[in-house]
Amino acid sequence: MTRRRSTLVSAVLAVPWIATAALAADLHQQVRAWRVAHEKVIVGELMGLLALPNVATRVADVEKNADHLTEMLKRRGFEVRRLTAAPGTPPALVGDLRVPGAKRTVVFYAHFDGQPVDQKGWLSDPFKPLLRTGPLGGEVKEVDLAKVEGPLNPEWRIYARSASDDKSPIVAILSALDALRASGVQPSVNLKLFLEGEEEQGSGHLTEILRQNLDLLKADAWILCDGPVHPSRRMEVFYGARGVTGLELTVYGPLRPLHSGHYGNWAPNPAVTLAHLVASLRDEEGRILIPGFYDDVRPLNAAEKAAVAAMPPVEEKLRDELALGRTEGSGGRLQERLMDPALNVRGLRSAEVGEGAANAIPTEAQVSIDFRLVPDQTPQKVRDRVESFLRSQGWTLVTEAPSPETRRSHPKVARVAWSLDYAAARTDMSLPVSRAVAAVVDRAAGSAIQVPMLGGSVPMVLFTETLKVPVIGVPIVNHDNNQHGINENLRLQNLWDGIEVFAALMAELGQEWR
Amino acid sequence: MTRRRSTLVSAVLAVPWIATAALAADLHQQVRAWRVAHEKVIVGELMGLLALPNVATRVADVEKNADHLTEMLKRRGFEVRRLTAAPGTPPALVGDLRVPGAKRTVVFYAHFDGQPVDQKGWLSDPFKPLLRTGPLGGEVKEVDLAKVEGPLNPEWRIYARSASDDKSPIVAILSALDALRASGVQPSVNLKLFLEGEEEQGSGHLTEILRQNLDLLKADAWILCDGPVHPSRRMEVFYGARGVTGLELTVYGPLRPLHSGHYGNWAPNPAVTLAHLVASLRDEEGRILIPGFYDDVRPLNAAEKAAVAAMPPVEEKLRDELALGRTEGSGGRLQERLMDPALNVRGLRSAEVGEGAANAIPTEAQVSIDFRLVPDQTPQKVRDRVESFLRSQGWTLVTEAPSPETRRSHPKVARVAWSLDYAAARTDMSLPVSRAVAAVVDRAAGSAIQVPMLGGSVPMVLFTETLKVPVIGVPIVNHDNNQHGINENLRLQNLWDGIEVFAALMAELGQEWR
Repeated sequence: MTRRRSTLVSAVLAVPWIATAALAADLHQQVRAWRVAHEKVIVGELMGLLALPNVATRVADVEKNADHLTEMLKRRGFEVRRLTAAPGTPPALVGDLRVPGAKRTVVFYAHFDGQPVDQKGWLSDPFKPLLRTGPLGGEVKEVDLAKVEGPLNPEWRIYARSASDDKSPIVAILSALDALRASGVQPSVNLKLFLEGEEEQGSGHLTEILRQNLDLLKADAWILCDGPVHPSRRMEVFYGARGVTGLELTVYGPLRPLHSGHYGNWAPNPAVTLAHLVASLRDEEGRILIPGFYDDVRPLNAAEKAAVAAMPPVEEKLRDELALGRTEGSGGRLQERLMDPALNVRGLRSAEVGEGAANAIPTEAQVSIDFRLVPDQTPQKVRDRVESFLRSQGWTLVTEAPSPETRRSHPKVARVAWSLDYAAARTDMSLPVSRAVAAVVDRAAGSAIQVPMLGGSVPMVLFTETLKVPVIGVPIVNHDNNQHGINENLRLQNLWDGIEVFAALMAELGQEWR
Repeated sequence: MTRRRSTLVSAVLAVPWIATAALAADLHQQVRAWRVAHEKVIVGELMGLLALPNVATRVADVEKNADHLTEMLKRRGFEVRRLTAAPGTPPALVGDLRVPGAKRTVVFYAHFDGQPVDQKGWLSDPFKPLLRTGPLGGEVKEVDLAKVEGPLNPEWRIYARSASDDKSPIVAILSALDALRASGVQPSVNLKLFLEGEEEQGSGHLTEILRQNLDLLKADAWILCDGPVHPSRRMEVFYGARGVTGLELTVYGPLRPLHSGHYGNWAPNPAVTLAHLVASLRDEEGRILIPGFYDDVRPLNAAEKAAVAAMPPVEEKLRDELALGRTEGSGGRLQERLMDPALNVRGLRSAEVGEGAANAIPTEAQVSIDFRLVPDQTPQKVRDRVESFLRSQGWTLVTEAPSPETRRSHPKVARVAWSLDYAAARTDMSLPVSRAVAAVVDRAAGSAIQVPMLGGSVPMVLFTETLKVPVIGVPIVNHDNNQHGINENLRLQNLWDGIEVFAALMAELGQEWR
């Protein structure tokens, strides 16, 4: 595509969808042809980036990645700034690429720090990226990139820490831009890249960085390029993510373990008390029994309901794979269930079971819980409701291990320890930008799955709340990437798909956004 | 007392209680005087017995103890038989001492095997018995028995494995007989000693030994000389003990841990299911909710109720000591609560809590339970009721880890593993022998606590069921004896009290039994 064609694309704003699709198909072919011709270069650039150790806790390593990325961005004409919340904290990078005549600005988000690599079982050095002929096991072999001719087998995989999470989206974005340029196509929106260096550490300074740079980060939408695509390998777009908050709850019995024969039926058994407490919080179908818990739940709108209904069925396969004889929610579909708030018991612990069990009354019992939140719940509101409910049930709540005096003077004492994580976020699927992203990705990827809200938690709310901007997720990497684990990997086809989708977004979003 | 006086004692059968008490007081003084004069001999004999290693799992050691005891019994004129259920199993000893003119036969039970001594923290060799000036800690010193003059300080203690559990009752019984003989008093009943060599191993061959020797063991009552006296140091008599049975119950979720964000609210959470299951079994006051569970409970009779009411109050002290802000049973007294069956949760386990907890749905959850049974419940009946109840709640019960196919094809699968231990036993306190033992011990010890049934479990039922004989417990050792633990010890005053109580039982039971 040349500037002339770019003008032509601008001119189609008013033409019907078929024409846009036809032009888009033409662009997609050019991007693909460019990629096929440059596969070894693209993979080489990614492997160069992956060779830099990036464990999030090592700030010096993270800074070297920032240096390397700065050069990669500058080569593409980005104006690059390095942002830190405070000295010695991991940097973020902002790359800025203005497009003459573009009315809107879109920020692509990815992160370049990675999880630790201490786990045993890595089959090759996590920071010596290696190409193999497929997933591990069976006949998989190593491939020497220097010795093969393109095009590469798209089922081959690159093995390294952050191969999937989350360096490959960065290379996909930059390659998409290269492909557009080679095709003579100008992006349809101003582009910014926001590359975080602290995501795997919990994004502790992200909000501060955003707050300090509101003007610099001003945009009409953010595209989050993190996370895997659907297990069916179909591309997906997500518009929200549930929030999360954690609760450790400990209840108490006698100060020392007591002979159950000599004291049972009289000294309170904390394991029994805990069982009743857990049962009072939620039923076996997943319904949370805390009064008012659902009051803050914003219902799905028509577009979101339609999207949930259109998601591919996975229940039968999962039931078989996981050997489930029943499911919660009275047989409701998984995707529907993930749109509701949830109370998950992560673990239970009181004294010992099995061989190690003694005929004794335990001294305490603990439950570990995570709550998944939906808009407009907040961790603080959930905390207040849970604590009010427990107090109404006769519990005295403490935040430290209670003294014998405290235990003696209150019938029921529970220690609560909250990890107040973050709220949910959900960008309205019927917003113009939402419909535009959906249309572009759908066309580029050949029918993408539209997910109103991820069941899992991603801190989208940090962006939506701080920047007051629509945020939409467009993940590209394979679901079976071992992210956070050993032998993390990226399937090449996912990188190719990512380049095509990102190129389409850059080239077409401005026109589609109406 | 001479034979003449013995005749006199026989002659008082019809005279009022005051006269008996006066004569008894006379005898008690003689027994005490004999003991004071022979303290070093008595302690020396006990220490000789304690010097023999007797860990229950080492049959050869147990047999050496049996040899030594055989000689001790023969010296007192007992006819001794060694009983084994099968070759290579630990022996029991029966000593027989006929008393001319005695109408009734009483068996005194004790055991001579001991717990293992592997624990760290023994301050002296568990099989080199050592006399110290008191309980460990503070100013306690070692005493060289050879270098001190009697009478010994009654607060001194003998440290050795089985010093309390259960060799000292054997020496107390034999010393009681020596004291009677020295006083010229003939026992009022035929005496048998049944000395078990496998108690600490679970009495696996006891029933078989009893069954094989019904004629030899024929008697009118058994006196169990095992266990500690009341923590107040008052002597106690117990007429029964609750039974016990254990249950390990495991419930299942997905085959592998699942991300709680992506699968929660849909894949069943086994920790939640287990909490509901436990809550369905009993309430927070200790009430067991299984239908029919109390149907087999034999109510206390008037004598038993009166005895429970007369037991010394311990609640306030225990509440303070154990820092209990409430008790189960809506404020009922401990001793009353111990007369009911109980369901105790020994432990809970599902995945991890605290630092180790993951935002995941666990694959399984386990609860360990012990039931305390009362007459006329049996482990089998309890098992049937629990399993029927669980089935009525939709549970499919299995006894091995269920296959994926089993988990897939049943909504709720629970693995049950029972340890079918033994039933309760309770000898009627209003039987003539019960009233006689109560009166004799009460008089000899100066007001003993009468306990209709121990809250803890002792396999009295093996005797009552196999031999169809009343069984009554008369423990003598101090409650703070570290039995089963390190630095097991016996307080000398408890040995002296035991000699006096056993002498009184031997001399007076025949007359009091009417």
